Amino acid sequence: MRAKHKIKLNPYKPRFTKRRSKKAGMPPGTLVHIGEKKIDAVRITYIDYDEQNFEEKQVANIEECFKFKDTKTVTWINIDGIHDIVLIEKLGKQFDLHPLILEDILNTDQRPKLEDFDNYLFIVLKMLSYNDEKQMVEAEQVSLVLGNNFLISFQERVGDVFEIIRDRIRNAKGRIRKMGADYLAYTLMDAIVDSYFAVLEKLGEKIESMEEQLVTDPGEKTPQQIHSLKREMIFLRKSVWPLREVISGLQRADSQLIDESTGIYLRDVYDHTIQIIDTIESSRDMVSGMLDIYLSSISNKMNAVMKVLTIIATLFIPLTFVAGIYGMNFENMPELKWRWGYACVWAVMATVAVIMLFYFRRKKWL
Amino acid sequence: MRAKHKIKLNPYKPRFTKRRSKKAGMPPGTLVHIGEKKIDAVRITYIDYDEQNFEEKQVANIEECFKFKDTKTVTWINIDGIHDIVLIEKLGKQFDLHPLILEDILNTDQRPKLEDFDNYLFIVLKMLSYNDEKQMVEAEQVSLVLGNNFLISFQERVGDVFEIIRDRIRNAKGRIRKMGADYLAYTLMDAIVDSYFAVLEKLGEKIESMEEQLVTDPGEKTPQQIHSLKREMIFLRKSVWPLREVISGLQRADSQLIDESTGIYLRDVYDHTIQIIDTIESSRDMVSGMLDIYLSSISNKMNAVMKVLTIIATLFIPLTFVAGIYGMNFENMPELKWRWGYACVWAVMATVAVIMLFYFRRKKWL
Amino acid sequence: MRAKHKIKLNPYKPRFTKRRSKKAGMPPGTLVHIGEKKIDAVRITYIDYDEQNFEEKQVANIEECFKFKDTKTVTWINIDGIHDIVLIEKLGKQFDLHPLILEDILNTDQRPKLEDFDNYLFIVLKMLSYNDEKQMVEAEQVSLVLGNNFLISFQERVGDVFEIIRDRIRNAKGRIRKMGADYLAYTLMDAIVDSYFAVLEKLGEKIESMEEQLVTDPGEKTPQQIHSLKREMIFLRKSVWPLREVISGLQRADSQLIDESTGIYLRDVYDHTIQIIDTIESSRDMVSGMLDIYLSSISNKMNAVMKVLTIIATLFIPLTFVAGIYGMNFENMPELKWRWGYACVWAVMATVAVIMLFYFRRKKWL
Amino acid sequence: MRAKHKIKLNPYKPRFTKRRSKKAGMPPGTLVHIGEKKIDAVRITYIDYDEQNFEEKQVANIEECFKFKDTKTVTWINIDGIHDIVLIEKLGKQFDLHPLILEDILNTDQRPKLEDFDNYLFIVLKMLSYNDEKQMVEAEQVSLVLGNNFLISFQERVGDVFEIIRDRIRNAKGRIRKMGADYLAYTLMDAIVDSYFAVLEKLGEKIESMEEQLVTDPGEKTPQQIHSLKREMIFLRKSVWPLREVISGLQRADSQLIDESTGIYLRDVYDHTIQIIDTIESSRDMVSGMLDIYLSSISNKMNAVMKVLTIIATLFIPLTFVAGIYGMNFENMPELKWRWGYACVWAVMATVAVIMLFYFRRKKWL
Amino acid sequence: MRAKHKIKLNPYKPRFTKRRSKKAGMPPGTLVHIGEKKIDAVRITYIDYDEQNFEEKQVANIEECFKFKDTKTVTWINIDGIHDIVLIEKLGKQFDLHPLILEDILNTDQRPKLEDFDNYLFIVLKMLSYNDEKQMVEAEQVSLVLGNNFLISFQERVGDVFEIIRDRIRNAKGRIRKMGADYLAYTLMDAIVDSYFAVLEKLGEKIESMEEQLVTDPGEKTPQQIHSLKREMIFLRKSVWPLREVISGLQRADSQLIDESTGIYLRDVYDHTIQIIDTIESSRDMVSGMLDIYLSSISNKMNAVMKVLTIIATLFIPLTFVAGIYGMNFENMPELKWRWGYACVWAVMATVAVIMLFYFRRKKWL
Repeated sequence: MRAKHKIKLNPYKPRFTKRRSKKAGMPPGTLVHIGEKKIDAVRITYIDYDEQNFEEKQVANIEECFKFKDTKTVTWINIDGIHDIVLIEKLGKQFDLHPLILEDILNTDQRPKLEDFDNYLFIVLKMLSYNDEKQMVEAEQVSLVLGNNFLISFQERVGDVFEIIRDRIRNAKGRIRKMGADYLAYTLMDAIVDSYFAVLEKLGEKIESMEEQLVTDPGEKTPQQIHSLKREMIFLRKSVWPLREVISGLQRADSQLIDESTGIYLRDVYDHTIQIIDTIESSRDMVSGMLDIYLSSISNKMNAVMKVLTIIATLFIPLTFVAGIYGMNFENMPELKWRWGYACVWAVMATVAVIMLFYFRRKKWL
Repeated sequence: MRAKHKIKLNPYKPRFTKRRSKKAGMPPGTLVHIGEKKIDAVRITYIDYDEQNFEEKQVANIEECFKFKDTKTVTWINIDGIHDIVLIEKLGKQFDLHPLILEDILNTDQRPKLEDFDNYLFIVLKMLSYNDEKQMVEAEQVSLVLGNNFLISFQERVGDVFEIIRDRIRNAKGRIRKMGADYLAYTLMDAIVDSYFAVLEKLGEKIESMEEQLVTDPGEKTPQQIHSLKREMIFLRKSVWPLREVISGLQRADSQLIDESTGIYLRDVYDHTIQIIDTIESSRDMVSGMLDIYLSSISNKMNAVMKVLTIIATLFIPLTFVAGIYGMNFENMPELKWRWGYACVWAVMATVAVIMLFYFRRKKWL
Repeated sequence: MRAKHKIKLNPYKPRFTKRRSKKAGMPPGTLVHIGEKKIDAVRITYIDYDEQNFEEKQVANIEECFKFKDTKTVTWINIDGIHDIVLIEKLGKQFDLHPLILEDILNTDQRPKLEDFDNYLFIVLKMLSYNDEKQMVEAEQVSLVLGNNFLISFQERVGDVFEIIRDRIRNAKGRIRKMGADYLAYTLMDAIVDSYFAVLEKLGEKIESMEEQLVTDPGEKTPQQIHSLKREMIFLRKSVWPLREVISGLQRADSQLIDESTGIYLRDVYDHTIQIIDTIESSRDMVSGMLDIYLSSISNKMNAVMKVLTIIATLFIPLTFVAGIYGMNFENMPELKWRWGYACVWAVMATVAVIMLFYFRRKKWL
Repeated sequence: MRAKHKIKLNPYKPRFTKRRSKKAGMPPGTLVHIGEKKIDAVRITYIDYDEQNFEEKQVANIEECFKFKDTKTVTWINIDGIHDIVLIEKLGKQFDLHPLILEDILNTDQRPKLEDFDNYLFIVLKMLSYNDEKQMVEAEQVSLVLGNNFLISFQERVGDVFEIIRDRIRNAKGRIRKMGADYLAYTLMDAIVDSYFAVLEKLGEKIESMEEQLVTDPGEKTPQQIHSLKREMIFLRKSVWPLREVISGLQRADSQLIDESTGIYLRDVYDHTIQIIDTIESSRDMVSGMLDIYLSSISNKMNAVMKVLTIIATLFIPLTFVAGIYGMNFENMPELKWRWGYACVWAVMATVAVIMLFYFRRKKWL
Repeated sequence: MRAKHKIKLNPYKPRFTKRRSKKAGMPPGTLVHIGEKKIDAVRITYIDYDEQNFEEKQVANIEECFKFKDTKTVTWINIDGIHDIVLIEKLGKQFDLHPLILEDILNTDQRPKLEDFDNYLFIVLKMLSYNDEKQMVEAEQVSLVLGNNFLISFQERVGDVFEIIRDRIRNAKGRIRKMGADYLAYTLMDAIVDSYFAVLEKLGEKIESMEEQLVTDPGEKTPQQIHSLKREMIFLRKSVWPLREVISGLQRADSQLIDESTGIYLRDVYDHTIQIIDTIESSRDMVSGMLDIYLSSISNKMNAVMKVLTIIATLFIPLTFVAGIYGMNFENMPELKWRWGYACVWAVMATVAVIMLFYFRRKKWL
């Protein structure tokens, strides 16, 4: 049973404090992969497109992507798996990325953030999903490097929420093929923010079922479940709050990489982010009082138990005392010889019991 | 019984997190209706007026309203029911509305907000009402598009708080017929904010009756009722806080769509909003401590129960012991043969009982 | 007894949410009196003065005051009773007051606020007093219209904290007769703020006596009293916080109606307001923990009760068991025939009791 | 015992809300002494110095100090006792102090503040000390008027933390004799802020001993002690927070009275103030959870008591029942005649007891 | 046992309020060592380097370092032990350090801060480590003086987190040998901030194990452990929050001592600081609810105990009463003579017991 809790609690630490300390004291820009290695082989794919042309390919060597650096077409290079330091270094060299940026890409313990370099923007995001089995929110770090005509995305493993966007590019659905790399970056961010709604829904359902449980069947595990709900909220919040700054930073960024027409779309994502934050805060408010309700339900149960005990004990203890009296063996106990003695005792007992019951009723214990 | 709670709790989820996730990954501006479909057929009505003229009509096709786009008269087009995507699209095309705006109109899970486009303002509001039966606050989204001489309002269903405004237009009451579309927009906002006061009053009454209940008759259901009161507060707050920004945004908006003379009216609505927020915060403060009072009242009850048990048990257990002593069957028990043995035992018992009672009285348990 | 609570709790609602909703949908500027009608007949008085001259009069018709609008002397028109809509309307017309201002004067549910029109300032304040009988803070709305050489004050009923100011004007005490209408407005505000100190003192005394009660004699009514204290704090706070903005607004107001020399006096009132807010916040902090202390005192009492029960029960139940053993009627019970059997039993019982008592003492229950 | 609490609690009121209300309605600048009269006779001393000269004297009449108003030397006039209104008035006239300033000097219920007049700065500070006997923090108001070459300090009574500064002036220790009146004002403020550290240490010790008491010996008085600790914290905080604004105000003040070289010293005091605030906030955080720990310790004790009761009762009640069975007087009870009946009963009882004990052990109650 | 707690609690005071008060009233700039004297002899080392040259030496006299003041090479003078006032004074004189700076270096009770003088920057930092034995976070103050081509660091004792940096200088690893003293200062700060991650990990582990303990085995010591965890959090927070201002101050500092190219590295440290603050706040949130969970687990246990007591008592008290009835010695008790009387009594008892058990089961107590 202990082992089971282990499973539940162990994942907590790496989420809040990854083993970042192992890097302590290294020169800045030293490339060390921090975080869980989630896949074996790095997968590199690129999509190159403009309004007329479209090319999609999975490549074995990162060098195949280098040619796209200065083409006029928009190129989206996606890298699944970030533990291959050599690859990241080559890429960084080719695309002139600052060593600190490379360091951040490798470190999956980043806070969502935006950094504005002259010739590219660097954006860190968290892709969240709800793991039904572990009953917890899981995060995967997505780093974006937005250049003039290219976008490089780094993910921890294969599988993301971007498939629908790839379809839109393939089929030239919507305006995506007509727009630049900044619009592509926006759609990725939008997809990520949209995925937060799914997580919120899951947590909303859990809050709802917790509220029902509190009313109908609060058990000994309820406090832990409330605590774990609260923990997921805190985790979610930690991922979403900085996102607000990221997006409002993008909006305000005076970068020539962001086209003016993309502004309104960013405002839209910004609104969604605010809405998510609002919902998280409301949910936190809701969860925060649940433990008190649980405590009051325990107290109510205790009260019920105590009442039963009190009624029974208060009823029978005096009666038992009366019976005890006439169980004494004194030689000189006149009542014992009375003809109606036994009946009288019963009468006395019945009277006492009735008075007691009347008293309990008046106290509303019955 | 479970089913009954279901009824009470189910409405919670859609209010806090609508099934927005189904849109995840779609291109921005994709029109999908998110929310409950509250009526079957869309109802379109328009009111066209200036100081001299007035025309009101319910139309079957949205095309009939298109002619008003550039007239000098003020036109209020009201659309009840927002699930007809084709209609919204047509309208959007005719009035040059940005696809993201159309998307927002269809999505009833919006936060109140203001967006300033060059040739129109887009305002999202929440119309609140208190559903006595479900014991909860209900929200209906109202979207306004304020153009130069027209105002388009979108509501989720027929029935609103604007009837009194229509009367004012019909009967040329007040200054409304002399003013432009911005003033009309203001009156709609004012009506919506005024309706919040009604909701606040209802909640105020519930808080009051809860306070009385806490004093006179706290029951097992009280914590859930307090929790649900708190939830309604949170819901209300979530709808009203962003409204403040919307209205102050309108006041600061440097849009030529808002006439300067409307400014003072907006300040008035703004004051009302602040007042509502003040009252919500005060009420939240008030509600927040109620559960503690409930807990202390349970504890007090438990104390009372325990005292009764303790008094009875403490009184009779020693006496029963004494009776037990003389119920023993030892051959050699001299007291049993004493003439006044039985009377002595009674005397001893009475003394013990009196001492006990005296002790309880001193402890203030009696 | 229920009725008594009614008396105590009923006044709550109108304080927090007045029946404002009855105005929903009316055109802005519609004059409706919202609030309790506190006196029957409106009383109009004016005081007209400059350094040399002084005139004070109660008039029957508001028209008698109109002549003062443009005189060089300072005129203070005071109106007690605000339910006479016709009167207010006339006044508004004569002094060019905006309809929304008139509406605000009539609505006693205003938040303290300042509105700056070109030719006059409009100030709403709350005059607070502590009603010893109802044990609650009562508010009366005071609206001030400050023009160039006149000040119009509106009160809900006769009786105010301004009598001492009238005396100062009558007797030319202090600098008031030498100063303008802005200084008069300041003295009124100062008097109102000063009256808050009296209310704070009353609440301070109640907090103090509550603290003493918590130590010496916490009763079942204590939680309700703490809650009601908290409620009065919230009410007070709601009235005072906006005042801060009003006064700092006046200080910053670039209005030619406020003479520069009045600035330092406003700073003084501002300081007082900050001090009151400080004290309210400190008191709230103090009150907030009281219920927890009460809860711990109940728990302590329960503990004491439980200990008595446990000691008595634990002491006598084993002894009663021993007595029960030798009350059995087996034919073959050798102990019963022993010569010292009875004495032995007593010895055993005494030993058990002594051990128990020793144990209780070690546990510090005795 | 009640009386003793009186002593402890009475001092509370005057600290938080002094009888300021008695001034309500008086003209601003009316000189009334508000606060406790702490000494009988006012004591006036002055120290006049420059780099070469030094003169220190206690004078009977304030007029003797007037000559220093425009001298080049730095003069520190110190007045202990502020109830002599005539004296204050004379001083105010001579040094051109604004009536509101004089009013503030007399009112010991001021919030620390800074007021910048053209030719002098007015500073109100609180000198704090910990009264070991009353177990509370005590405050004495110190008002400073900083002119071009003079500093006037007003204290409520003789005795202060400035003696060490006087020594430095007398002995020309440090740079004080070379600097102006602004540096003197700084040293006074520094001394006052330094004295706060002593108070913090005292409270820190009390927190520490309270933490230890919570672990080793929580008693019935603990909640009151925690509450009183909290109260002292709130009082301290109320005195220190505004000080931050005062000092940062001095730093930013564009007054020619503050020499630029004094700036770095003010920054130093500012840092100390921030540090004190930090420590107060940390301590408040620490104290805030203590009552909960106390509650959990009571609950634990109650649990222990209940376990003893339950074990004893659960063990002996069934056994007593068995004994009761064979104490019945039925004629036809075959067991009573069995040869090993009595022994069997003992065996049954022993078995039941052993099972019970085993059960308790498994439940970890033993 | 008391002594043991002493060990645990004593360290608290010096951490929160060092005996700073002993300095009260001294002239500013008076050099007094405040804090624990952690080593006996002061150790002075210097590292002098540029891209080509490197020299490292431990010196006995501080004068040996003075020559580096104006060299072109970067010099890092490190002083372990700050109780030697004479040494500090000499150093201060040579490097033109302001007396207040020297005072701050000697006082280990500083808040992290940044002071910008014209020719040097003064930075105070806290180096944190987790002491496993004492179960608490320990802080060592590090003061940095950053001049044009030199950096002087002051530490309380030998041993730091900078060894790895010295290695990088010695081996010309990374860019450090090519950069100036500002970059060196950055690397020191970076190393310190990195060390915070290690402390956070430790506390994270403790939180995790506390969460597990709450679920599996909450004991009487749990509340104290939670409290102490909370205390460490508060202590950590107090050290880290001001750091944020320090680093953002460095970023904004318009000092020619900070090269522009160092800016991006400072931003990196800043991000780390924000991340640490985020994690601390999340952890505080997590810890804050733990005591409530503990309380609910105690309540649950109490409930379980009470149920056992109630079941046993409620079951046997009525049965014992019945047995008591037939233990009475009345002469006229017909049941006693019935043939099946005894059996009947057993039957009645069994029936009562079964009904009781059925009732308990329905109440879910069994």
